[in-house]
This record gives sequence, C-alpha cells and structure tokens, in this order.
Amino acid sequence: MAPRLAIVAGSGPMPRRLADSARAAGRDVFILNLDGVTDPATADGLPSATVGIGQLGRAIEILHRENIAEICMIGPVKRPSLSAIGLDKRAIALLPRLIRQGRGDDALLRVVVGELEGEGFRVVGAHEVEASLLAPAGRLGRHAPDAEAEQDVALGVRVARALGALDVGQAVVVQQGQVIGVEAVEGTDRLLERCGALRLAGRGGVLVKLKKPQQERRADLPTVGTDTVARAAAAGLVGIAIETGQTLLVDREATIAACDAEGLFLLGIDPGP
Amino acid sequence: MAPRLAIVAGSGPMPRRLADSARAAGRDVFILNLDGVTDPATADGLPSATVGIGQLGRAIEILHRENIAEICMIGPVKRPSLSAIGLDKRAIALLPRLIRQGRGDDALLRVVVGELEGEGFRVVGAHEVEASLLAPAGRLGRHAPDAEAEQDVALGVRVARALGALDVGQAVVVQQGQVIGVEAVEGTDRLLERCGALRLAGRGGVLVKLKKPQQERRADLPTVGTDTVARAAAAGLVGIAIETGQTLLVDREATIAACDAEGLFLLGIDPGP
Repeated sequence: MAPRLAIVAGSGPMPRRLADSARAAGRDVFILNLDGVTDPATADGLPSATVGIGQLGRAIEILHRENIAEICMIGPVKRPSLSAIGLDKRAIALLPRLIRQGRGDDALLRVVVGELEGEGFRVVGAHEVEASLLAPAGRLGRHAPDAEAEQDVALGVRVARALGALDVGQAVVVQQGQVIGVEAVEGTDRLLERCGALRLAGRGGVLVKLKKPQQERRADLPTVGTDTVARAAAAGLVGIAIETGQTLLVDREATIAACDAEGLFLLGIDPGP
Repeated sequence: MAPRLAIVAGSGPMPRRLADSARAAGRDVFILNLDGVTDPATADGLPSATVGIGQLGRAIEILHRENIAEICMIGPVKRPSLSAIGLDKRAIALLPRLIRQGRGDDALLRVVVGELEGEGFRVVGAHEVEASLLAPAGRLGRHAPDAEAEQDVALGVRVARALGALDVGQAVVVQQGQVIGVEAVEGTDRLLERCGALRLAGRGGVLVKLKKPQQERRADLPTVGTDTVARAAAAGLVGIAIETGQTLLVDREATIAACDAEGLFLLGIDPGP
C-alpha cells in the first residue's frame, strides 16, 4: 500500500480535488489545514488537523504523530506580513536562512521543503500524486491563436521568465505587442481584473502563466482552472498560454470546455530552458 | 538667439513648466498640443497648434511652417490602441518599422525621433532645455532610508531594470523584501493606488522608478513630482528612489518639501550600467 499522504492545503478547490483523486487511487489521506487559508470544506469527512501558517514546529509534530510518509503542498497561500504571523520557535529558527536566501515565495518554499525533508518526510509535487493534473502540450481546446496572439504569447513568455527569475510573479497579460499588466503579490485573479480595465481598444490580449524558471517544482506550481478562464474572458482576452508539464489544470475537461465555450484558446507551451 | 523650440506636450503640468522655464531663459516657444492628451491650459497665451496623436505628417508640416529648429517631447502620453488612432499617411508608413522594432513605448519613441531628425529637426531632452529638472544624487530631503529600506531599494532596482530592458515599465514597489507591484501600461499613479491596498501589515515599502536601460533619453524620462509623493504617502510607503541624472523632478523644491512633510525619503541613486 502507498505510504500515508498529508495534503498541506492552501486555498481554493485544488487540495480537496487532489485528496479525492488520491483516495480514489486507494491512498490514505490526511489534511493539514492552514488557519485562515484553507477552504473550510476541504477536510470534510477526512482526518485532519489545523495549524497557523507560522507554526512549523507544531505542523511537524502533527505530521509525525499521524505517521505521515509523504507530504504534498497544494493551493495558493497568500503570504501575510511576517509581523502578522504567530511564528513558533521552529519557524523563528528559519528566519536567518530565509533572510539570506531572499524572501520571495520560492525562497520561502525551498526553506520549508528542506525542513520537512530533514525530518524524514518525502515532499512530493501534486503531479506526482496525480499525473493528469499537469498541462499537456499543444492546442488543448477548439480555438487556435492567430499570428498576433502568437507574437503576444512570445513576448509574454520573455517577460514572465524575467519576472520569475527575480521571484516576482508567474503571470503577464500582453495585447497588441504591449505588456498590459504584470503579476506581483496581487495574484492572477486581480491581474486579470485590472487588465480588463486597462486593455486597449480592439482585438487580442493573452494571459501567459509560467513556472518561475528556478521554482521549487513540488510546491506552488502555476494553476489554471475554469475560474481563470472566466476571468480571462471577462477581461476580453482571446487566449491563455500555460507551461506544458509545469502547470496544474484544476479540472482539465471543464477548463478546456470553458475555453471552447468562451472562444479562448488554451495552449500548452514549452518556453525552453 | 537660441533656435525656436517646439514643445510636443504630453499630459500633466510638465510641458507648461518647461515652456515657462525656456521662455524665462529668453527662448521663443511653440506648443504642439496632442488632441485629447495635452492639458488644455498648457498653451494659454503661447503660440500653438493641435494635432491628433496619429497625425505625424501633419505635425511635421506644422513644425516646418512654424520654423521650428528644436523639438522637446515632454509629459506622459497614454498610448491608445492602434485601431483607435486616426493614423495619417506618414504614420502608416512607419508601421512596418514599428512592428520590426517591437511596440513598447520606447520602440515607438525611437521611431518617431528618427523621423523628426530625418526632417532636419533637432530633438532634445527636457534636461537639455532646463538642466535643473534632473534629479541630483544622494539623499535629497531630510529623511534617510533604514537598512531594510535600502535592501528593498536594491531589489526594486534589479526588478525595474529587468522590466525596463523588456520595455514593460519604469516603476516597482517593494516592501519587506517582497515585490508588491510592478508597473506596466497602468502608470505609476495606479500602481501606487493598488499597492496601498496590497501592502503587507507592518513597516516599510519603497517606490523605485528608473529609466529603462536602453531608453531613448530624449523622451519619456521617468517623472516624479509632488503628486507622486502624495500617492506614495497614501500607499503607506516610506520612501522613493529615483535615478540620478535620468529622472525629471517636476518641481524640485516642492517635491523635496512634500517628502520632508510626509516623512518619506527621496533618494537619487545610480543603478549602474
């Protein structure tokens, strides 16, 4: 039997979907809720516990007590200010290392993954639990980009990679050769809202969302789902480009169907090394 | 006597200030208003004409007719969609070159400057008309950054330069080692509004605004004034870093006084080559 899996649950529907899919494959699943972050329905009917976002020591204690062998972190976690988190001793002990490594999300995740591995847990990516979550290559729906959209995607890839390399954000919106908006801490939803208001008159507009080049692949992979499609359509965009094998599609069939219905293309691309 | 100067007037107070300052130095000034862009009061009492933003041929005709020798472009111009501009023949003839060179603001300005120079006009930067407009080096007001603010400025410089190199934007807001927001087409004012809502609890937060590394220095230099200071203060920031010799200070004394009054530092920095 596969080792017991703990899902450290960020916000949104992904943690529960992953739990259901792991259980359908016969796995024993435990949910670790993050106080104020995890959707309350996530752990319904499943064994679970809740820790504060700064309680690393307590989280590790619980994971040992529950005989967890593998840990998967999934779902967005909006980072609060350091001063707003109740950091436990274990978390405080990490601060010097964090400050050395930089304080972007990716730096933080690397440090946390390192701590968990040091405790003997195996930290796995969501795609290792459920391979079908990852975006495949090529045109995923009915619609295809035109030449201008292809150019906008290419520019979006260059900008997203430059930003990602600096641990700033994953997403960018490009229209008619101009970068309309760039994601930092606000997240993709708010970026899309803003770009709906900022977009130029006339045609076009694409969302490009990529993994940061150096990103810890076992946590915080870019995620796209039906909600993203609805927001991109509301912003007047004509398509979405995501990274093949590096982007989580929350519900592949529903997401592709939403793109088809809204007239958006959905493209799995390989931005290169 | 100095050659006749045309000020191609973007929005905001800078074009008029520059006109007044050039006239005080004894120069003969002509204002070229951009329809829907230039503040209507800009040309009050001065010789002027108005052209649409896509009427390059007509603009050149007027500038020749008015015996203009030097041209200075100053003040932000929000670019409308190509399809929303009434392009005249001369502007349409530039489109293939624009498409080859990319369509960010800097690429566009280079092409326009090239056209004007081909017509025999000398295109000058605002700082060549009035040297005191440029930001000096070092601490410009009463307040100084603390160690954390200095680190935030350093990170902001790296991000702003990476973005600028891709012709995306000039400004970035950093707080507590995290990039809170990045400017694209929305401009610095809206970036600051957004970052007021997005900022982390607790201290800190800086605005870094730099010239794009490859930027045509004779147009679209980053601009900071009392309005920027008010918006940065409203967003809860503790300071502003600008590029020595490459940033226009709308009104140096008033801008520094506003920083002093709001408790913000104002720093002229050299981000290196």
